[in-house]
Amino acid sequence: MPPTPSHIPREECGIFGVFGHPDAAQLTYFGLYALQHRGQESAGIVTSWPGGGPFKRHRGMGLVSQVFDENILKTLDGDRAIGHVRYSTTGSSLLRNAQPLVAETAAGQVAIAHNGNLVNAGPLRRELETSGSIFQTTTDSEIILHLIARGLSESGGILHNALHRILGAYSLLILGEEEIIAVRDPHGFRPLCYGRLGQAHIFSSESCAFDLIGAQYVRELHPGEVFAVGLQGPRTIEDLSRKKRSALCVFEHVYFARPDSILDGHPVSESRKEMGRRLARLHPVDADIVVPVPDSGNYAAQGYSEESGIPLEHAFVRNHYVGRTFLQPTQLIRDFSVRVKLNLIRPLVQGKRVVVVDDSIVRGTTSRARVVNLREAGAREVHVRISCPPHKHPCFYGIDFPDPAKLIANQLPPEKIAEYLGADSLGYLDVDNMTYAAGGPRHNYCTACFTGFYPEPYDFSTDKLILEQRRYTTQSLLPPHDQRTLQL
Amino acid sequence: MPPTPSHIPREECGIFGVFGHPDAAQLTYFGLYALQHRGQESAGIVTSWPGGGPFKRHRGMGLVSQVFDENILKTLDGDRAIGHVRYSTTGSSLLRNAQPLVAETAAGQVAIAHNGNLVNAGPLRRELETSGSIFQTTTDSEIILHLIARGLSESGGILHNALHRILGAYSLLILGEEEIIAVRDPHGFRPLCYGRLGQAHIFSSESCAFDLIGAQYVRELHPGEVFAVGLQGPRTIEDLSRKKRSALCVFEHVYFARPDSILDGHPVSESRKEMGRRLARLHPVDADIVVPVPDSGNYAAQGYSEESGIPLEHAFVRNHYVGRTFLQPTQLIRDFSVRVKLNLIRPLVQGKRVVVVDDSIVRGTTSRARVVNLREAGAREVHVRISCPPHKHPCFYGIDFPDPAKLIANQLPPEKIAEYLGADSLGYLDVDNMTYAAGGPRHNYCTACFTGFYPEPYDFSTDKLILEQRRYTTQSLLPPHDQRTLQL
Amino acid sequence: MPPTPSHIPREECGIFGVFGHPDAAQLTYFGLYALQHRGQESAGIVTSWPGGGPFKRHRGMGLVSQVFDENILKTLDGDRAIGHVRYSTTGSSLLRNAQPLVAETAAGQVAIAHNGNLVNAGPLRRELETSGSIFQTTTDSEIILHLIARGLSESGGILHNALHRILGAYSLLILGEEEIIAVRDPHGFRPLCYGRLGQAHIFSSESCAFDLIGAQYVRELHPGEVFAVGLQGPRTIEDLSRKKRSALCVFEHVYFARPDSILDGHPVSESRKEMGRRLARLHPVDADIVVPVPDSGNYAAQGYSEESGIPLEHAFVRNHYVGRTFLQPTQLIRDFSVRVKLNLIRPLVQGKRVVVVDDSIVRGTTSRARVVNLREAGAREVHVRISCPPHKHPCFYGIDFPDPAKLIANQLPPEKIAEYLGADSLGYLDVDNMTYAAGGPRHNYCTACFTGFYPEPYDFSTDKLILEQRRYTTQSLLPPHDQRTLQL
Amino acid sequence: MPPTPSHIPREECGIFGVFGHPDAAQLTYFGLYALQHRGQESAGIVTSWPGGGPFKRHRGMGLVSQVFDENILKTLDGDRAIGHVRYSTTGSSLLRNAQPLVAETAAGQVAIAHNGNLVNAGPLRRELETSGSIFQTTTDSEIILHLIARGLSESGGILHNALHRILGAYSLLILGEEEIIAVRDPHGFRPLCYGRLGQAHIFSSESCAFDLIGAQYVRELHPGEVFAVGLQGPRTIEDLSRKKRSALCVFEHVYFARPDSILDGHPVSESRKEMGRRLARLHPVDADIVVPVPDSGNYAAQGYSEESGIPLEHAFVRNHYVGRTFLQPTQLIRDFSVRVKLNLIRPLVQGKRVVVVDDSIVRGTTSRARVVNLREAGAREVHVRISCPPHKHPCFYGIDFPDPAKLIANQLPPEKIAEYLGADSLGYLDVDNMTYAAGGPRHNYCTACFTGFYPEPYDFSTDKLILEQRRYTTQSLLPPHDQRTLQL
Repeated sequence: MPPTPSHIPREECGIFGVFGHPDAAQLTYFGLYALQHRGQESAGIVTSWPGGGPFKRHRGMGLVSQVFDENILKTLDGDRAIGHVRYSTTGSSLLRNAQPLVAETAAGQVAIAHNGNLVNAGPLRRELETSGSIFQTTTDSEIILHLIARGLSESGGILHNALHRILGAYSLLILGEEEIIAVRDPHGFRPLCYGRLGQAHIFSSESCAFDLIGAQYVRELHPGEVFAVGLQGPRTIEDLSRKKRSALCVFEHVYFARPDSILDGHPVSESRKEMGRRLARLHPVDADIVVPVPDSGNYAAQGYSEESGIPLEHAFVRNHYVGRTFLQPTQLIRDFSVRVKLNLIRPLVQGKRVVVVDDSIVRGTTSRARVVNLREAGAREVHVRISCPPHKHPCFYGIDFPDPAKLIANQLPPEKIAEYLGADSLGYLDVDNMTYAAGGPRHNYCTACFTGFYPEPYDFSTDKLILEQRRYTTQSLLPPHDQRTLQL
Repeated sequence: MPPTPSHIPREECGIFGVFGHPDAAQLTYFGLYALQHRGQESAGIVTSWPGGGPFKRHRGMGLVSQVFDENILKTLDGDRAIGHVRYSTTGSSLLRNAQPLVAETAAGQVAIAHNGNLVNAGPLRRELETSGSIFQTTTDSEIILHLIARGLSESGGILHNALHRILGAYSLLILGEEEIIAVRDPHGFRPLCYGRLGQAHIFSSESCAFDLIGAQYVRELHPGEVFAVGLQGPRTIEDLSRKKRSALCVFEHVYFARPDSILDGHPVSESRKEMGRRLARLHPVDADIVVPVPDSGNYAAQGYSEESGIPLEHAFVRNHYVGRTFLQPTQLIRDFSVRVKLNLIRPLVQGKRVVVVDDSIVRGTTSRARVVNLREAGAREVHVRISCPPHKHPCFYGIDFPDPAKLIANQLPPEKIAEYLGADSLGYLDVDNMTYAAGGPRHNYCTACFTGFYPEPYDFSTDKLILEQRRYTTQSLLPPHDQRTLQL
Repeated sequence: MPPTPSHIPREECGIFGVFGHPDAAQLTYFGLYALQHRGQESAGIVTSWPGGGPFKRHRGMGLVSQVFDENILKTLDGDRAIGHVRYSTTGSSLLRNAQPLVAETAAGQVAIAHNGNLVNAGPLRRELETSGSIFQTTTDSEIILHLIARGLSESGGILHNALHRILGAYSLLILGEEEIIAVRDPHGFRPLCYGRLGQAHIFSSESCAFDLIGAQYVRELHPGEVFAVGLQGPRTIEDLSRKKRSALCVFEHVYFARPDSILDGHPVSESRKEMGRRLARLHPVDADIVVPVPDSGNYAAQGYSEESGIPLEHAFVRNHYVGRTFLQPTQLIRDFSVRVKLNLIRPLVQGKRVVVVDDSIVRGTTSRARVVNLREAGAREVHVRISCPPHKHPCFYGIDFPDPAKLIANQLPPEKIAEYLGADSLGYLDVDNMTYAAGGPRHNYCTACFTGFYPEPYDFSTDKLILEQRRYTTQSLLPPHDQRTLQL
Repeated sequence: MPPTPSHIPREECGIFGVFGHPDAAQLTYFGLYALQHRGQESAGIVTSWPGGGPFKRHRGMGLVSQVFDENILKTLDGDRAIGHVRYSTTGSSLLRNAQPLVAETAAGQVAIAHNGNLVNAGPLRRELETSGSIFQTTTDSEIILHLIARGLSESGGILHNALHRILGAYSLLILGEEEIIAVRDPHGFRPLCYGRLGQAHIFSSESCAFDLIGAQYVRELHPGEVFAVGLQGPRTIEDLSRKKRSALCVFEHVYFARPDSILDGHPVSESRKEMGRRLARLHPVDADIVVPVPDSGNYAAQGYSEESGIPLEHAFVRNHYVGRTFLQPTQLIRDFSVRVKLNLIRPLVQGKRVVVVDDSIVRGTTSRARVVNLREAGAREVHVRISCPPHKHPCFYGIDFPDPAKLIANQLPPEKIAEYLGADSLGYLDVDNMTYAAGGPRHNYCTACFTGFYPEPYDFSTDKLILEQRRYTTQSLLPPHDQRTLQL
């Protein structure tokens, strides 16, 4: 089992960019709206015009609809924009960590929006600080900004050397004085799509944002591709991917991406239905109804129902007004946080043998509460089916799973998990079926959270002890050889 | 066609109450959470202890989760509470109109939470003002409070006479110094349920709130029932319903109530599935897939699919982060307000003959945009099926429909509506099938918005011109016969 | 000694009104700015146009500059306005108690701004509640509004009877649908001035507000005068003052009013200088410098210096940025609350015999801290001179003194007070010198806080136990004879 | 006349620091309270403990009392703290420019609070950016932080080289991991005092802050002194002042500092009174009363009155509740911004020959409005006396005067200024009398704003065009030789 990763910085993010449209900020606002599921903690947009003038930026904590309003968007004028939504673990939920980051460098202003996590952030930050760089955030993304600022004096272009220093997961949008540059890391851990809206160029973490603004999906960026749009038009300027294998996060297909997105050409809804069909073949059961855990289990449940012939019933009802609940109603109301999101329609399950289909079991507590709900409502049998394998390993590339020690698959042997859940049976999909359902063989995907096989090794000096909780030096600012009192 | 009702006060609301629980405010907070779909504009809670002491109240504009937080709930101590969520038409969206309303009267403090609309508010308000009452809100609910305050000197109890003066739709929770009194109007236009949580007594507009807090559903209040809980325990103290027929709003079953609620003993999800089945029999069609408009069309679509044998596809994806969007992107993005809520999964509908099932067509613009979306995504045929009859008439009992002149069913003959929508065919459910699906014959329900038959006639002097935009008198405060200057 | 008045409602207020000016709200904003010293807790403005239309109101907690901004003032359109600033004791610092109060009555809309306290509020409120009135605030001012609303059916004009029911201190501005009516109570406890700005009519608690907006001071309203401006022009319509003696609060001259105001024709700065001169004659002392406690002691100190020939030194420096300090730095910094407002310029007092002149001693703690400051700074002798007599009695007419039991003059004999303060000598002005310095004989002023002689007796049933902490009834809303359960 | 300095960055500031007290943040809060007159736009505090751990910082826009509250101060734990209040010209009023600035460097965390302006910020910033530094603010103070971060690799101590690179005005407080270092620039343009509170060490821009917290004033730092307090106790570690002459800003004595402060051993109130006495000798006049413009003219007026024998009258009354007024009442109310701060007590000046004493005339508009006020109030003659010479030149060292072209002394010959003001006569103090009154000869003070003689020349490449409105490069981030499209 890997070491406890509680100090590893983790962020889930969505990025969106527009080049060459007079309403760039407003389009980016809509784009972030469609990517809101990728990060609900903070949002930001930076805009600019060609030919200089100060970048305009607005960032805030909260949902896109809370951070921006009509007046704010009006201040964000420009024909190009990049935007970012972010979720991070509690400790670093600071406004100053919200992206896009902006800096003034000798090459002018540079803004950056980053989805993914670097695996060599620790050593890079140490190196930069030692040579005089000042850090304002605890994010790995700021490192990229410093490397760009340093690149001026180096041969090969300002950006080139910066990109050759960083390792790990990075889908990037970089706004410079003259262009927007989109970059996808050599493995392509995180998605990044390119599209067109009339003459304008659009970038988005997921294609669902194109539908919202009426843009045409052109293609996914290739792993390792550095793609620029500027006055000279769109062009690929570099390929960073040599020798590295493609490794899109398979969990984007299982859960993280929206079902109406297309990832690397494959519709996510279709991946999920196929996972459900394969799950029905792998773990069939004699039952009366298939019940999805909405909304993430909907398509897999449909696939399961299709394949098995067992009718689908939407017995769980989702409360659409659940925002951030702040209360800890532990004593007062058991399982409130479970109940408030989903309520059960009792008449639909009473006396029935139920197959409940969900996308994953993490800690097990939520799944267990669902089984309890079903039992209380009178279900005769409860069979749990999960559309991916058991989660056992941390993600170093941008998905925030809990500490592996808290994952139920690391706590109990498989046969005991069903017992813990109170289920009559439990079936997981396996790795091969999952990746094939997502459209390709196992080695085209990153499956590290299931298999522990990491396409890019993590430098463990990159932990939060470095970036956030660094053991602060107690170094004096004064010369050690000259600390005597001087008489004036 | 009835007169233009643009000045008729309309409110959609949910009410919730607790008697005899030390965490009354917190339970009410949870209850309002579950009733949030009945009103998203303002929320409020009033609490008290037995034996006097000032009532505690907090109200605010916005969602329950925005209006309350842990600290606010702590200030709302007491073992009894009533709460309210409200939606109203724009003009009257004022905090001072938010409920519960509280007043100090000679009988002590009284708080009131009201769901429904009175039909004789105009004459009552005139009468009260003429005899010296001061009004602080533009709501009809304040009239009930004044009638109670006036009731002290009358025989038959403080409340009795007040309730015999008001006509129309009212599900009420009244918090007095000694008890909570729940009242449902003689027709029972709006629902009101009674339940138990241990020793505590719970009231709620819908039973889904009971599930959230783990309370037991006991029964619906009867139309006309005045039910009190105080130190003497729960008891029915009066029946106001003499000679009036029962007339629960059938649109609660079609759309307004949550599918996991039980209304007058009938599960809402079952009503909707049955509407779908009957719709399939009434308007069959040869097609490839049935697509619901989520979430309101989900259960009817399932019924349609079951009955017709045509497979169900969840081709529309709902964006769960859509809050109040403020932008008017008319030129920039066509149909944004439609697209932002629901996006279509193109591969699922491409080349298919689609039956799209929705709960209603009001103005027609949204339905039309959905058909356009389906066509753009490559649907070969689009057949629209609606699980209720065409809306033609205003509701005077608490549902906020647009001006009848704007309802498409009043603008176009039936055969032209499909054409306007761009649909290959259009089928509505009829009144009898709708009411039978909801569990009873036509005369057990209010179907006024479809049929124009009103169980309780509306007094048209009760319009907003009276309550809100009253033609202000230009009466002097000085005696007309004594307006000469006096020398001092 | 009078009974402990800790439950007596007390408010200090300023009122301002404009009739007949297109920028009525903005002028009122400026006027309240100039009256800010009369109340810093809440502020409000109501405006209207002739010929009906809804009154516009904005109120808020805080200073005038915090409550209003450009956008808010724009919403307050109208050619007439009344405004109010308020300070009250902590318990009742609620926004809903902020004035002006507004109500809709059968005579149309009525708004009211009130400075002063009624002495028969308790019995009046009980009477009104018993006949069905609903109260929304805990202020005595709301009683006036209810009496006006009730007046419609009475002979003699809507207002006439209301004004004949209330006793005590009231300077009122009433905005009706057709006019503004200004009223000063029969004793004239609180000031109220009338002025002109071009064609517009202006009312203000103090004349200093006229200077700010460039208006002409015309005259003070007479005690008991009811003065109206409407379409028929300005006119006195009634004299309520029969047999009551004039009794302007002398403490307005001593401390409360601004030195640049004119009260009943007498400049406040001149009153204060004359108090200082008379104080020098009554309590002469051989000293080196006269030091005022700024700003309230400035003019009296100047008079003392003039009369005695001892030079004036501004040794205390006021910090102009002291807002509401929230910290209780008891242990950390001794006398912080004293020091933060005033700092001493040590070189000016070192080795000097100092006469320190202040307007009053209330609890004694602040005065004592000042003496300590002077001693620490090296003053050789400290002689305290106070420009009014010792405070011993509560004010029932609108000034908020502490509980008499906490007044130092009720705790120590005169000769011990100097000792407690640490002063070498202490001298108070006497009642006759004070009132003559203010421009008239003793019986032209209310001197109740010094003498205990009250021009209008207080009805002790008007205490906070009634208005705020009323012993809440535990009366049931149900008929006592009919509390059995009814079977439905 | 010097060049138009509208693009020169200007800031007025106050700084305060505590070392070795468990309530460091609270003491700093009090200290900033006392220094509020030096900057009202933003405030900030940074705290730390010895031995590492993250620095705690809170900054905000507004007054000290608005930016901090009890809860915020509780989060600022530590036994050492530095704080800052700031005023700057409108364009740069950004929260991100608020101080103290904090950075993480290879030498650990460093925070800085800076009063004054550097004269070589432009070239330094260019140099730093060229070698890869990223800037987050538009302040010259951030340059110092970068120079410190760069200093790690240099001999002579981290701080030594940084301080030898910067030129101009800087009173600094630097909080490192191990110590607080206080620095005053070689000329000593801005004050910086050192004091003790028990065992704790205190630093403050002015001594008045010591009085508030009960600290003992020890001495002013010498020009050029680098003074550190750490575990080894307090000590002077370097003298930067070689060959540079002492040049404290004389305008601190005239206007900027508080009258209860001591600057370089000389009480400010005494300086001002002496300026008034010398002004009376230089420009005597036959008059009835001397009237100060409060509060800045109070002490000079007293000196004038003493020397001339003409009695002093406080005819102007200050409104203590004037906050930030936002309204532009140009048409409505003439001179509102003048009147709202000061109102005139008419009876005191009517028919009198008035000497009005003020600290300076800048644009002339305010002074003119005062003369108009006095004339309107009936003054027979108005003689204006100013306690310093005419302002003609910009300040590059930290005082924000308007553009020289807008200074009345650059627009009109001396004899025309009195005419413009509407005064019967006008007299300014001269440079020699001013500096002698402040305690020393002319060459001990910076008098640049009066004389145009600058102790440290300004590098005009340091203008806002560089720091804020830099002509943004339109440099591409891509290598120029490699901008062809690459086929992937």
